[in-house]
Amino acid sequence: MTTITWYEQGEFRTYTVDELCAIAPASIPKGATVWVDMSNPTPEDEQQLLTTWLGVHELVLDDMRPNDDLAEGMHPAKVEEFEEYLFLIFHAVPIPERKPDEDVGTFIHRIRGQQLNFIMTEQLILTHHEVALACIGDVQRMVLKNRLAMERGPDYITALILDEIVDSMNAYNALVEDRVEELERLVMKGESTYTIRRLLDHKNRNQFTRRKLMQHREIVARLSRGEFKVIGMDEAVYYRNVHDHLVHAVDHVDTIRESILSLIDLYFSMSSTRLNQVMRVLTVISTVFLPITFVTSWYGMNFHHMPELEWMFGYPMVLAIIIIISVVMYVVFRKRGWLA
Amino acid sequence: MTTITWYEQGEFRTYTVDELCAIAPASIPKGATVWVDMSNPTPEDEQQLLTTWLGVHELVLDDMRPNDDLAEGMHPAKVEEFEEYLFLIFHAVPIPERKPDEDVGTFIHRIRGQQLNFIMTEQLILTHHEVALACIGDVQRMVLKNRLAMERGPDYITALILDEIVDSMNAYNALVEDRVEELERLVMKGESTYTIRRLLDHKNRNQFTRRKLMQHREIVARLSRGEFKVIGMDEAVYYRNVHDHLVHAVDHVDTIRESILSLIDLYFSMSSTRLNQVMRVLTVISTVFLPITFVTSWYGMNFHHMPELEWMFGYPMVLAIIIIISVVMYVVFRKRGWLA
Amino acid sequence: MTTITWYEQGEFRTYTVDELCAIAPASIPKGATVWVDMSNPTPEDEQQLLTTWLGVHELVLDDMRPNDDLAEGMHPAKVEEFEEYLFLIFHAVPIPERKPDEDVGTFIHRIRGQQLNFIMTEQLILTHHEVALACIGDVQRMVLKNRLAMERGPDYITALILDEIVDSMNAYNALVEDRVEELERLVMKGESTYTIRRLLDHKNRNQFTRRKLMQHREIVARLSRGEFKVIGMDEAVYYRNVHDHLVHAVDHVDTIRESILSLIDLYFSMSSTRLNQVMRVLTVISTVFLPITFVTSWYGMNFHHMPELEWMFGYPMVLAIIIIISVVMYVVFRKRGWLA
Amino acid sequence: MTTITWYEQGEFRTYTVDELCAIAPASIPKGATVWVDMSNPTPEDEQQLLTTWLGVHELVLDDMRPNDDLAEGMHPAKVEEFEEYLFLIFHAVPIPERKPDEDVGTFIHRIRGQQLNFIMTEQLILTHHEVALACIGDVQRMVLKNRLAMERGPDYITALILDEIVDSMNAYNALVEDRVEELERLVMKGESTYTIRRLLDHKNRNQFTRRKLMQHREIVARLSRGEFKVIGMDEAVYYRNVHDHLVHAVDHVDTIRESILSLIDLYFSMSSTRLNQVMRVLTVISTVFLPITFVTSWYGMNFHHMPELEWMFGYPMVLAIIIIISVVMYVVFRKRGWLA
Amino acid sequence: MTTITWYEQGEFRTYTVDELCAIAPASIPKGATVWVDMSNPTPEDEQQLLTTWLGVHELVLDDMRPNDDLAEGMHPAKVEEFEEYLFLIFHAVPIPERKPDEDVGTFIHRIRGQQLNFIMTEQLILTHHEVALACIGDVQRMVLKNRLAMERGPDYITALILDEIVDSMNAYNALVEDRVEELERLVMKGESTYTIRRLLDHKNRNQFTRRKLMQHREIVARLSRGEFKVIGMDEAVYYRNVHDHLVHAVDHVDTIRESILSLIDLYFSMSSTRLNQVMRVLTVISTVFLPITFVTSWYGMNFHHMPELEWMFGYPMVLAIIIIISVVMYVVFRKRGWLA
Repeated sequence: MTTITWYEQGEFRTYTVDELCAIAPASIPKGATVWVDMSNPTPEDEQQLLTTWLGVHELVLDDMRPNDDLAEGMHPAKVEEFEEYLFLIFHAVPIPERKPDEDVGTFIHRIRGQQLNFIMTEQLILTHHEVALACIGDVQRMVLKNRLAMERGPDYITALILDEIVDSMNAYNALVEDRVEELERLVMKGESTYTIRRLLDHKNRNQFTRRKLMQHREIVARLSRGEFKVIGMDEAVYYRNVHDHLVHAVDHVDTIRESILSLIDLYFSMSSTRLNQVMRVLTVISTVFLPITFVTSWYGMNFHHMPELEWMFGYPMVLAIIIIISVVMYVVFRKRGWLA
Repeated sequence: MTTITWYEQGEFRTYTVDELCAIAPASIPKGATVWVDMSNPTPEDEQQLLTTWLGVHELVLDDMRPNDDLAEGMHPAKVEEFEEYLFLIFHAVPIPERKPDEDVGTFIHRIRGQQLNFIMTEQLILTHHEVALACIGDVQRMVLKNRLAMERGPDYITALILDEIVDSMNAYNALVEDRVEELERLVMKGESTYTIRRLLDHKNRNQFTRRKLMQHREIVARLSRGEFKVIGMDEAVYYRNVHDHLVHAVDHVDTIRESILSLIDLYFSMSSTRLNQVMRVLTVISTVFLPITFVTSWYGMNFHHMPELEWMFGYPMVLAIIIIISVVMYVVFRKRGWLA
Repeated sequence: MTTITWYEQGEFRTYTVDELCAIAPASIPKGATVWVDMSNPTPEDEQQLLTTWLGVHELVLDDMRPNDDLAEGMHPAKVEEFEEYLFLIFHAVPIPERKPDEDVGTFIHRIRGQQLNFIMTEQLILTHHEVALACIGDVQRMVLKNRLAMERGPDYITALILDEIVDSMNAYNALVEDRVEELERLVMKGESTYTIRRLLDHKNRNQFTRRKLMQHREIVARLSRGEFKVIGMDEAVYYRNVHDHLVHAVDHVDTIRESILSLIDLYFSMSSTRLNQVMRVLTVISTVFLPITFVTSWYGMNFHHMPELEWMFGYPMVLAIIIIISVVMYVVFRKRGWLA
Repeated sequence: MTTITWYEQGEFRTYTVDELCAIAPASIPKGATVWVDMSNPTPEDEQQLLTTWLGVHELVLDDMRPNDDLAEGMHPAKVEEFEEYLFLIFHAVPIPERKPDEDVGTFIHRIRGQQLNFIMTEQLILTHHEVALACIGDVQRMVLKNRLAMERGPDYITALILDEIVDSMNAYNALVEDRVEELERLVMKGESTYTIRRLLDHKNRNQFTRRKLMQHREIVARLSRGEFKVIGMDEAVYYRNVHDHLVHAVDHVDTIRESILSLIDLYFSMSSTRLNQVMRVLTVISTVFLPITFVTSWYGMNFHHMPELEWMFGYPMVLAIIIIISVVMYVVFRKRGWLA
Repeated sequence: MTTITWYEQGEFRTYTVDELCAIAPASIPKGATVWVDMSNPTPEDEQQLLTTWLGVHELVLDDMRPNDDLAEGMHPAKVEEFEEYLFLIFHAVPIPERKPDEDVGTFIHRIRGQQLNFIMTEQLILTHHEVALACIGDVQRMVLKNRLAMERGPDYITALILDEIVDSMNAYNALVEDRVEELERLVMKGESTYTIRRLLDHKNRNQFTRRKLMQHREIVARLSRGEFKVIGMDEAVYYRNVHDHLVHAVDHVDTIRESILSLIDLYFSMSSTRLNQVMRVLTVISTVFLPITFVTSWYGMNFHHMPELEWMFGYPMVLAIIIIISVVMYVVFRKRGWLA
C-alpha cells in the first residue's frame, strides 16, 4: 500500500500515485514536504514511482528488494549519495506482541528484522518496506498532529524514524538481557546440552547484532556530520541524538556479550566442579570400603591354621578394627573437606 | 535545591532563581563568574532556568534527566557544543561512608554512579545532578575560600570538579582492587560457585568501568586540546592534568582486569589440581587393595584339593605376600611422588 | 585461447592476435572498446601481446603467472597503477558442477581458486587466466547481447566481471555454511577425531578466506573511490555495489567463523558432559555395590563364634540390610540427579 | 643533595643553590650549560629552586613528588611542554647488587622503579629524583671526563640519561627471562600451586612493564621527531637511538609474554597428561583384578553341588584361567600403549 | 674480506681498500656505481672505510655490529636517513645445506638469521655482514653478467638483494610448514610432553618471525613510496614487488600460526578423548564385575540357613543370573556406544 502525504503551508493533502506522478519531482514547490510511504508495494507502483518518476538507479532498486542470499534476507545498512537523492538502508526491528505465558526465548525467536529503505531529496522522503512497520506508523500519526515536523522537512522526519528504530533495537537488547538472565538460572541448575547450545547461539547472535549496530552507528555518524547536502546542519542535533542512542546500544550489546561469555565460563566451571564432587564421592566410598572389605576377605580365607578364627574375641576384634578404620577415614576426609 | 553563586570583582553575592532570571545570560557583566548548582532540582526550576532563561535544547534536557532504559540510569558521558553553550555529561562516583565491619564486597555494591551535567558559557557554569554530590560541595567550599578560582572562570571550576570526580573513580578502583585480593584468598581456600561467580561478575564490571573511563578520557582529551571556545588555553594544563589522571585510572583498571583473569585461571588450575589429587588417592587405594584382596579371595576358594591351605606356614606365607605387595606399591608410589 | 572482441560504433568485430598487433595500442580510435581475453594462453601469445604490443613490465608478467611457492599457487589480489595501464589481480572461485550424491564436504574440497589478471587502459581490457572461467564467459555473452556495456568501456566490463567473482565467493561461503551445519550434527552425535579435525580445518580456512576477502575489499574500495584515472566516476556506483557485496561476504565469513568457534566449544563441552556421565555411572555402581559386597563379605568370614550365622533370621536380615542400603542409595542419587 | 654543574667554555664550575639562585635563569650566558641534579631534595631546596627560581607550575610540582595512590608510587611517564621549559617524567629501573646465592625470583622482587623528573630549557637541565640513581651518577662522571657532552647541551645529556635508563630496563627484562626459564624447569617437574601462581604473577607484571615501555616509547618518539623546541634536530639521532632500544625492549617483553603464556599452556597440558596417566594405572589395575577376583569369588561360593570343587584339577584349572586372563589383559594394554 | 666493484661506462674495475680511500666519496664520477661488500670485515677496514672515508655516525657503527643483548644478536631491521647516506638494516636468513637424513626439526634449528647492513648514496652501495651470505654472492655474480644492473645504480642492486632475502624468508616459512605437518602426525599418534613443547615453541617462534616480517614490510613500504632521495621513483616498482612478497610472507606466517593453534587445540581434544576412553573402559569393567562379584560373594556367606545352597539347581541358577546380568550390561553399553 502506498500512502502519500503532501504538506504545504500548514495544509495536508492526500494524493494517489497517479496524481503524484503527474507532478515532476523537480517542480514540487519550495516549502512543501512530501512523504511517500510504500508498504509492501506492488511491482507496478515500484516501476511507476521509483523507476519512472524518481529515476532511481537500477542497483538501488536491487538493493531495496529482499535477497535470500543475504543474512535475514536484508541488505546491510548503508548510505549512498546520488546527484538527485540520498539512498539509505536501515534495519527496523519490529517487536511483535508477546503472547500470554510465552517465554522470552520463544518470543525473541519470533522477532525478525525488516529492511527499511529511504530515498530523500530536499523536499521528498520516500520510505519503502516489505511489511507494515510500527516505527513508520507512529511517526505518520505524530506528523499529522504536529505540522511543525513536516515544516522541518524530510531530514527531520528521517531522524524521527531512525530514533524509533533505535528504540526498538534497545527494546530487543533488553529482551536478550532478560533471556541471558534466564539462562543464568539454567546454568546454576546443572549441565545440559540445551543450556550450552543456547548460550553459544546467543553469543553468535550477539556478534551479529553488534556488527549491525556498528554499521548503523557509522552511517548515523556520517549523517550527523553534515556530509550530505539533503541533511541540513540545523537537524544535525537530532542525528547526533540518534548516534548517542546507538553508542549506548553498542555498549549494551557489549555488556550482554560479557555476561554471555561469563556464563559460558561459569557453565564449564560448574561442570568441572560437579565432576570433582562425583570423583570425591567415588574416592571416599572406595577408600572406606576397599580396606574393610579386605579385612573381612582376610578372615574368609580357608587356612586350617588361622588362630584368630578360633579366638573368643576374634569376631569382635574384627568389628573393632573396621570401626577404627572407618573413623580414621572419616576424620581424614573431614579434615580434607571432602565430605561437603 | 538550586544554589547560585555570583562572583564579581572579588565579591560574592547570592541570588535566588527569580533574581537571576531577571538578568539575561548575555548581559552578565564581563569579569563576573556565575555558578548555578541545581541539586535534585524541581521541574519548575528546570523549566525556568534551563528552558526559559538559558534556552537549552529539548534533547539536552532529555539527556540531563535519568533514563531507566540506560545502564545505571545514566546517559553515557559526552560533550556537545552548541552555539551558545557547551554541554557536558560526566559520571560522578560518590563513595558513601563505610559502615564499621562492612566487608568490601558489600560496600562496593552500595556504590552507585551519578550523572553530573554541566552547561558552560564564558561566564556561567551550571551544574545539574539528582543527589547532593561531595565533588560539588568540596569545590563550592574551595572557591568561597579562594576567590582566584572564581576569577579564572567556569572552565577552571569545571576542571576542579572533574579532578574530584576522577579522584573518586580512583578511590573506587582501589576498593575493587581490595576486593580482588580478598577473592584471591577465597580462590586459594577451595573451589566454590560463590567465588567463581564473584570473579566473573567483577570481570564484567571491570569492562564496564573501562568503557566508561575511556569515554571520559576521550572527552577530557578534547577539552584539553582547546577544541571548544569556552575553555581557554590557559586552563588547558588543568585539563591535561585530569587527562593524566584518567590515563592512570585506565591503566589501573587494566591491571585489575589482568589480576581477575589470572585469578580465574588460578581457580581452574586449582580445581584441576584438586581433581588430580583425588584421583591419585583413589588410584593408590585401589592399586594396593585390589591385588591383596585378590590374594585373600584366592585362599577363600573352597576347592577340596588346595595344598597351601593345609600347610603349616600357609597363613604366615599369605601375610608375607601381602606385606611384600604393600611395600612394593609404597615404594613405587613414593618414587612417582603420588603420596604427597 | 585468445579471444579478441573489438567494438566500435555499435559494431562488433573479431580480430586475430596478429591483426590486433598490427594496430598500436595508442592508435585505437576514440570510442572503440577492445576486450582481449587470454584463457590458458600460449607463451607465444603472451610474448607477442603482453611484452611486445602492450609493453607490460617484466614484474607484472611474473605476477600474472602461477607460482607454486604461493598459497594455492596464486599471487595475492592487488591493484597497481602504471603510467600506461592499470594492473589488477583478482581471485575467481569457479564453482564446479556438483555430482549427484556428492556430500558437501567433498564438494568444497574440489573447489579451487583461480587467479584472474586484468590489464586496463582507457579503451582496452585484457583478461588473463589459466583455465576457462564462467565469470568471463557469462560477461562475454552478456556484452554481445547488450552493446551498451561495450559502449561504457573497460571500467564497466571489469565491474561486471568483479560482480560475478564476488557472487561466486558468496556461493562458496553458502556451501561452507552448509558444511558447518552438517558438522554441527556430527558434534551432537558424539566425539570423534574426525569431527574436531574438520572443525579446526574449517577454522583455518575461514581465516584464509577472510584475509583474501579483505584484500579484495580494500582493492575494490580504492577502485570505487576514483583513485585511478582509467576508472571513470560514472562507473563508481558499480564498483561501490561490488564493494557492498564484499562487505557482506566478509560479514558472512565472520558469522561462519563464530559458528565454527561455537561448535568447537560445544564439542569440548559435550565431551566433558560425557565424561561426567561416565563418571557418574561408575560412582553410582561403586557406591551401591562396594557397601553391600562388604556386608556379604562380612558374613563370609570363618570365625567360629559369629552368632548371626546361626540365627534363624540371619540370612533374611542380611537381605533386608542390603535392600535398605540399595533403597537409601537410590533415593540419594535420585535427589542429586545422578540417575538421569 | 643538590649538585650543580656549570659548564662554560671548557670550564666546569660548582655552585651552591644560593649562588645559582642569584643568577636569573634567563641570564645564563649563551654557550653555558647548567646541570642541576636534585637527589632526594629537601623541601627548602625544592621551594627555592623549582618554585621561586624556575617558576615551575604547581601541577608540575605535584607530578614530581611520589604519590601513594599510583602504581609503584610513580606518576606515569610523560612529556609536557610549557612556554619556558620542557617537563619530562621517566621511570628509572635501578638494578641493585645481587647477593651471593640470591635466586633470581627474590632478586627481581627487590627491584623497584624510581621516578626521574627532568626540567629542560635551552641551557639548563634539572634532574629530580627520590634516591641516588646509577644512571645519573654514570652520566655525571662521563660529562666531567668528556666536556664535549656539556658543549652539546641539555638535550644531549638527557639523551645519554635516557639511554642508561633503557639499558637498565633491558637488564631487568633479561632477569625476567632468566626467571621464566627457571619456572619452565619447575613446570616440567610437576604441578604445584606455587608454580602456576608465579607464572600468572609474571603474566600480570609483564603486561604492566609493556604498558610502561609503550608510554616511554611514545614519548621518546615525540622527542626524536623534533616536536619540542628545546631539543635540537642535531641530537635527534641520539633520541632515535633510544627509541630503537625501546622498540627492542617492547619486542623482548612480547617474546617473554609468549613464553609465559606457553608455559601456562604447558602447565595445564602436563597436569592433564598426569591425570591421564593416573587414570590409566587405575584402569589397568581394575581391569586385571576385578575379573580374576570374580573368578576366585566364584569358587568361594558355598553351594553343596559345585562339581569343580571336587575335581582333581579344579584348583590348577582356576590358576590357568587366571593366568590366561592376566596374559590377555597384558597383551591388550600393551597394544593400546597403556603400560608406558 | 672486502670486495670493491667499480663500474663505469660498461667497464668493471676492482680496487683495494687503500685505492678506494684515495678517492673522496664526493668525487666518484657521475654515472659510476661502486659496490663495497664487507664480509666479516677487520676492525681496520671498518675504521678506514666507514669512519674515515664515509664519515659514518658512531651510533650507526654501533648498530652495524652484533650485540649479544639483542634477540639473535641482531639489531631490529630499520631504515635511517642521514644527510649524506641512507642506512638500512635487514635480516638475511641464509639456509644452510641440508644433511642427508636430517629431519626438518633439527634442520630448522640450525638456521640462524644474519644481520645485513646497507649504506647507500646516489652512487655507492656498501653492504656489511658478519658471515658470507648467498644473497650477496648471487647478486654479485648476476651484476657481473648483467651490466645493466650496475647501470641502474645502488637502489636497484639493493632491491635485488632484498628480493633474495625475502625469498629465503619464504623458504624458511616453507620449512616451518613442513615441520608443523610433521608435528600433526605426532599429535595424532598420542600425547607426549615432547609434542606439546615443540608446538608451543613453534607458536612463540612464529610470533617472533611475524614481528620481524612486519618490521621489514614497513621499511620496504617506506622505501617503495619514494620517501628517500637516494631511491629513485623508477626503481619503486621493484621495491613494490619486494613489498608484495613480504605481504605474502606475513600471510603465510599467519596461516602457519593458525595451523599451530589448531594443532594445540587438537592435542588437548585428543588428550581429553583418550581420558574419556580410559574412563569408559574402567566404568564398563566395574559395572560388569561389581554386580556379579556381589552375587558370588552372596553365596559365599556362611549362614547356616541358606536354602539356595542346598538346592539342586542353586549353582546353575547363579550361573544363569550372572550370564543374564552380563548380557544386559553388554546390551546397555552397546546402545550407549561405550564399547567402540
